[in-house]
Amino acid sequence: MSTPTRIVNVGAELLASAVEDQAVPVTMVDWRPPMEGTAGDLATVAADPLRRAANERALAAMLGVQALLVDVRPASEVLGLTADRFLHAGPPIAWERASGPLRGALMGAAALEGLVEDPEDAAGLFAAGDLAMEPCHHHRAVGPMAGVVSASMWMFVLEDPQTGERTYCSLNEGLGKVLRYGAYGGEVLRRLRWMSAVLGPLLAEAVRHHGPVDVTGILTQMLQMGDEAHNRNRAGTLMLLRDLAPAMVTSGFDPRDVAEALGFIGGNDHFFLNLAMPACKLALDAARGIEGSTMVVAMARNGTDFGIQVSGTGEEWFTGPAQIADGLFLGDYGPDDANPDIGDSAITETAGIGGFAMATAPAIVRFVGGTVPDALATTRRMHEITLGENPRWSVPVLDFQGVPSGIDVTLVCRTGILPQINTGMAGRLAGVGQVGAGLVNPPAGIFPLALSALAERTRARPGWQAPVR
Amino acid sequence: MSTPTRIVNVGAELLASAVEDQAVPVTMVDWRPPMEGTAGDLATVAADPLRRAANERALAAMLGVQALLVDVRPASEVLGLTADRFLHAGPPIAWERASGPLRGALMGAAALEGLVEDPEDAAGLFAAGDLAMEPCHHHRAVGPMAGVVSASMWMFVLEDPQTGERTYCSLNEGLGKVLRYGAYGGEVLRRLRWMSAVLGPLLAEAVRHHGPVDVTGILTQMLQMGDEAHNRNRAGTLMLLRDLAPAMVTSGFDPRDVAEALGFIGGNDHFFLNLAMPACKLALDAARGIEGSTMVVAMARNGTDFGIQVSGTGEEWFTGPAQIADGLFLGDYGPDDANPDIGDSAITETAGIGGFAMATAPAIVRFVGGTVPDALATTRRMHEITLGENPRWSVPVLDFQGVPSGIDVTLVCRTGILPQINTGMAGRLAGVGQVGAGLVNPPAGIFPLALSALAERTRARPGWQAPVR
Repeated sequence: MSTPTRIVNVGAELLASAVEDQAVPVTMVDWRPPMEGTAGDLATVAADPLRRAANERALAAMLGVQALLVDVRPASEVLGLTADRFLHAGPPIAWERASGPLRGALMGAAALEGLVEDPEDAAGLFAAGDLAMEPCHHHRAVGPMAGVVSASMWMFVLEDPQTGERTYCSLNEGLGKVLRYGAYGGEVLRRLRWMSAVLGPLLAEAVRHHGPVDVTGILTQMLQMGDEAHNRNRAGTLMLLRDLAPAMVTSGFDPRDVAEALGFIGGNDHFFLNLAMPACKLALDAARGIEGSTMVVAMARNGTDFGIQVSGTGEEWFTGPAQIADGLFLGDYGPDDANPDIGDSAITETAGIGGFAMATAPAIVRFVGGTVPDALATTRRMHEITLGENPRWSVPVLDFQGVPSGIDVTLVCRTGILPQINTGMAGRLAGVGQVGAGLVNPPAGIFPLALSALAERTRARPGWQAPVR
Repeated sequence: MSTPTRIVNVGAELLASAVEDQAVPVTMVDWRPPMEGTAGDLATVAADPLRRAANERALAAMLGVQALLVDVRPASEVLGLTADRFLHAGPPIAWERASGPLRGALMGAAALEGLVEDPEDAAGLFAAGDLAMEPCHHHRAVGPMAGVVSASMWMFVLEDPQTGERTYCSLNEGLGKVLRYGAYGGEVLRRLRWMSAVLGPLLAEAVRHHGPVDVTGILTQMLQMGDEAHNRNRAGTLMLLRDLAPAMVTSGFDPRDVAEALGFIGGNDHFFLNLAMPACKLALDAARGIEGSTMVVAMARNGTDFGIQVSGTGEEWFTGPAQIADGLFLGDYGPDDANPDIGDSAITETAGIGGFAMATAPAIVRFVGGTVPDALATTRRMHEITLGENPRWSVPVLDFQGVPSGIDVTLVCRTGILPQINTGMAGRLAGVGQVGAGLVNPPAGIFPLALSALAERTRARPGWQAPVR
């Protein structure tokens, strides 16, 4: 038989992707039209003399970050939170527009902080503005699902040793009835109190004894072990346990507490998500604020709005309505029970993993839905809207190709291909908890919004000359 | 685009396998000639009226076994070994024909048992027949590489709860300079003494507190986490650690010993191999001794001979010269330093994992050599010589197809396709240790030998009528 050395393919994506599996180079000829109304802004941004170097710098900055777990501390200490201030996932939002799960988590957190006895009583305080709510992202933090952080919660502290920059994330509570999915019952608050009283201090002591844990390095290994680090974090969780267990044992803590903590972490396949997320944020924060860069540095949802931030447009959020995921439901729940997309966890996709790396985690289709060929095709499709590949994070089954990294607003607008996110689904009513997991995209309209802002900045720059069209 | 519903393919395996990746059914038309001289025996065995049902029974018996880790005990206790009796990998062999690594491991074990001060002094005792050597397989045990077991070593005890049948394997020492690769220096013996004094008793206590560990279930998970359970056991090792760590902590052992044991297991990605192997043996032993079955129930190598046992031919070994693996070498070692294939670990391939499941562990090509497309193609090829698939052990990237299970001597002879094994490579001189890892096949001639014995039994059966050819 003869092996083709190069194939040009139009349209028949199934076969193309199948051949690509065999590591034969495939050129996809893209026939998709650009998003409606973006032609002028695309031409402007394409002609921006800063763009190419700015994007190279942004991508290199992101890929250059190493995230180390260096400490575990209370949010009051590292984020300066007082009992009446709460962080949440996604772009800014007021109580009036907040979704059920976000409200539920805020109410539970208010009870956790002792501001109210009954979580239900907190609603009025938030509505009246007596309790403050701000995005995690505005405090170098990220939170999965509702993403609510309150003063007494213990936070993972991640640091890039080259720059000393830090990011933060709370500890993962597990699945089902948990605060981040909007549940706030007694079991939820009891678990959170145990996490603050035992788990946090024990992990802090273990990290101190062990020394920094290389979260970026664990992510490298996870991607070779069937995890995509958003909705599969099994291997990552186990590697964290492996690294910290000996130091936990010699920490001087009561062996029963140590055993309980080991069982809690080992029984929660998602525990490592809360390290993957701040590692991704640390990487992406390094790429912020580069004039001319069209790279997305955050995708985040508060359960009502989906927002993105872009390197070349500073701290501005471009938002649109959060979508409902398409996926698999727990027990008797169905699509009517699901809240729209929520959480800062899309920071993983922003950094090239999660939905972008599903090819390396085909077993995830049993959790979020879809098919194995879809999972393989998704990773390949995401390369069409990203600036490059991550040489540290590779996908063995795609012949060790690096994950698609650095979402480019112009490529999204030019192709109409939307970033693919996989996600847990919260119940839409406060107090319910998780109802499923699935696949979801950002609202398409936010990318032309960002493009327009980029184009406006380009045109406003001294010496700008409009391209001849 | 239109999606083909079924494809018939002749020869162009690259494309066929690529399409198969997309979960489109593919029919491979096999043009390979049978192995030379096997036509008559193939016709006889094909006409055996017992064969079909016997193979169904053998496959079902193998697939029906659940392997639980129920205890950890000294070999003296569970295998009745005295200090002067030693088990080894592979088919039976005398000292005179034993390879360097097997000799090295036996010498080290004699020193471990206190029979000699200097391991070198043991050679004469083995040569004189003062010390006995017998195959692990003759004692319901398996051992990786040299596979040497001596009285004071602690053994994993696996049991099928349905039948109470048990199998045994020693504890894994790690890589590099270790007894099973033929090294016997002071560091090797010190580590083995610590394993007998601390690790074995601690694991025994942990298993007692935790209760039986579901090894078959961990194997199910591993195959979704990039392990093929022969040369990648990373996820399996971590899951064992997760399951036993809490019970180790509350065992009452000194926390420093517990921490050392946790670090030892966590630092050895191959630790779980010594559970995967006896789990596979427990499954395959259930398929032994079924008259008319052409299913292979053991493949094992002693470093000189490669032997197989077949369900329908009892305890008989069919042996030929062990081959040298083709693969990757550690440091400055090269092919001249490698001993021929050694170890009972090919029991994993016999049960459908290891080399047979490389499609689920593409990252293994960085350890044993080959390419990712080869790894995918190998699993598909092994389906051509196996009786069925294992519904418990599936390969996500092949759309959750079960691993190819139950090697059929007649299919091997008819297609000439040899079982694919991946393996560590021992240095050929006693005392060296590991020199690399690679891919290897059994010597082709042993399958016609087994076929001939099967045909002979068929012809000898009362009422046999030769087929009309």
